[in-house]
Amino acid sequence: MDIKKYETFMQKAIEEAKKAEKIGEIPIGAIIVKEGNVIATGYNKREIRKNALLHAEIEAINNACKKIGNWRLINCDLYVTIEPCPMCAGAIINSRIKKLIFGAKDTKAGSCGSVINLFELKYNHRPEVISGVMEVKCRNLLSSFFKNLRQNKN
Amino acid sequence: MDIKKYETFMQKAIEEAKKAEKIGEIPIGAIIVKEGNVIATGYNKREIRKNALLHAEIEAINNACKKIGNWRLINCDLYVTIEPCPMCAGAIINSRIKKLIFGAKDTKAGSCGSVINLFELKYNHRPEVISGVMEVKCRNLLSSFFKNLRQNKN
Repeated sequence: MDIKKYETFMQKAIEEAKKAEKIGEIPIGAIIVKEGNVIATGYNKREIRKNALLHAEIEAINNACKKIGNWRLINCDLYVTIEPCPMCAGAIINSRIKKLIFGAKDTKAGSCGSVINLFELKYNHRPEVISGVMEVKCRNLLSSFFKNLRQNKN
Repeated sequence: MDIKKYETFMQKAIEEAKKAEKIGEIPIGAIIVKEGNVIATGYNKREIRKNALLHAEIEAINNACKKIGNWRLINCDLYVTIEPCPMCAGAIINSRIKKLIFGAKDTKAGSCGSVINLFELKYNHRPEVISGVMEVKCRNLLSSFFKNLRQNKN
């Protein structure tokens, strides 16, 4: 696939992340693409909904399952601005996502190469992974969010 | 804690698993206990709700967050009949569950000691784990379910 196409879809995930930022959530966004069409979106709502499960990827997978009417997201690719945590990487395995495309690494909780690569273990599904798509833009979204947070605390 | 208390609560998780069995789902059940009280329950609904996320633990954590009004499930213990998969083990980390008590191992997807032990990695939370509580009963629920499934296919 052309890198330009990855970037076009990652830009849509970034727009989702900005929706999280606007409501004071850590800016992480995700979309799910099936055969060239965005079929589901999601952004982080953990604080506002007071729910540990509401990461961007979980919301996107939940919406995609509802849209397709199947727990198997066959031929679906998930784009997310930041490397998924173990919960979200596990949800990607469980929903049979074909390809994961992420922007920036998460050295603290990232489970697709940083803390561990869950996709190298002997689970029953292994998505293809493309990392580093619009990495700087995705990372800057996060770092400027936390910078503002620190400044507002002082 | 007295093993009898673990067994009393695990029996409640088994009752949840039986609810899944009744609707033709793989029989896995979970409950969340806070300070001696059951505050949330869940059972597997993946097929009936056509949603890859709807494992017993995820439903229980979702219900507990709603009940408490906090994404941090402080002083909460999760009981589940089968060893959690990576998605559910990750959700346990994310929701800060204090103690995980499970019945039977899952050699194919279990991520609390079988395929891997996610709680030994450098994430920001490590629950205590008690395994093997009512192990035979929990495993038999599963094995008789799959046995019936095979017989009905013939």
